[in-house]
Amino acid sequence: MKQTRERIVAEGVGLLSKSGLSGVTLGVLATQTGMSKSGLFAHFKSKEEVQLQLLDETARVAQATVIEPAMKAPAGLKRLRVLFDRWLGWSEKAGLGGGCAVAGGFFELDDAPEGDPVRQRLVAMELEFRQLLTALTNDAIKHGELSADLDVQQFVWEMCGLYLNHHVSHRFIRDPRATKRAHLAFDELVTRSQPAKRRVRATSRRR
Amino acid sequence: MKQTRERIVAEGVGLLSKSGLSGVTLGVLATQTGMSKSGLFAHFKSKEEVQLQLLDETARVAQATVIEPAMKAPAGLKRLRVLFDRWLGWSEKAGLGGGCAVAGGFFELDDAPEGDPVRQRLVAMELEFRQLLTALTNDAIKHGELSADLDVQQFVWEMCGLYLNHHVSHRFIRDPRATKRAHLAFDELVTRSQPAKRRVRATSRRR
Repeated sequence: MKQTRERIVAEGVGLLSKSGLSGVTLGVLATQTGMSKSGLFAHFKSKEEVQLQLLDETARVAQATVIEPAMKAPAGLKRLRVLFDRWLGWSEKAGLGGGCAVAGGFFELDDAPEGDPVRQRLVAMELEFRQLLTALTNDAIKHGELSADLDVQQFVWEMCGLYLNHHVSHRFIRDPRATKRAHLAFDELVTRSQPAKRRVRATSRRR
Repeated sequence: MKQTRERIVAEGVGLLSKSGLSGVTLGVLATQTGMSKSGLFAHFKSKEEVQLQLLDETARVAQATVIEPAMKAPAGLKRLRVLFDRWLGWSEKAGLGGGCAVAGGFFELDDAPEGDPVRQRLVAMELEFRQLLTALTNDAIKHGELSADLDVQQFVWEMCGLYLNHHVSHRFIRDPRATKRAHLAFDELVTRSQPAKRRVRATSRRR
């Protein structure tokens, strides 16, 4: 029973990556896993329960693909850089076969009511991730690599925007320069967030 | 016949804004317009034709809401600023009742095959809009308001990212500071893209 459920979740997480939350119906999932709908119902009570399970599994895969490699890098700016690098296109790096279900969900569930459990889970996942970004940014400040008077929330906000923008450029527009542009923008964000002394050095190095 | 078709398109464009491309099925549209599915088929041959028509209508509404007010502003940085301001949350300004169907489509159709007609239309819409952003940015350079050696494609790329990021912050996370953050980031982007002389002035003014 547990094995079957794990197999469904493992296959479902790829379907979620490719088709988004609205694409994960019990019918499609049944076809993909070679089960009957009633067979699926033995494991999941509703479409909503499937979606919640698959979001949890997506978070687990992202943790292994993005966060764990970053935590192995030295704390501070280096760790932030590794995280950003691993984050870009992470669903492809993880072999999920499609895009980031979390980013997709931001646009699927933007009109969902406040109490919608799937929306609530997605908001919680995103806020948790942003807390991590905030903590890593604060570490870089403590190490003197980012300016002590940095607007950390604005820094994290802009970092999240670079990720979304890369997703669109790379996966939808299919611009071969997408990853280069994202790194350029991130480098620029870091440079102007550094303490004045370091910033001068970084600028002169670029010339 | 023409009137009925126009009524369907006018109601459908709101449905598209709220439910995304995958939510615009002939069944839902029939219910919303109080028609039978076969009645709808007299006006549209397929779900795909409905989607294409609704994307065209979305472009028309965006033109009136975002582009036309910007074109009334003086050419150069002022026009670019008005465009950015009108662009943020434009679907709400236009009363569509949901988010930006184009931005949503970027995540819905990122895995669609290259030849998918709906994907192709959306790519064409986006590239046309980015051409406009490029032209307005070049105007600001000609007016001496942005630096002559600006990487225009990178500037436009980052502007597009601010829009996406605002959409997520404002509509999904429902952060009351979303619009303030987007304007802060845009001001920062403009400041560091100005000719050196102007940049010094802008920086000292802020102090």
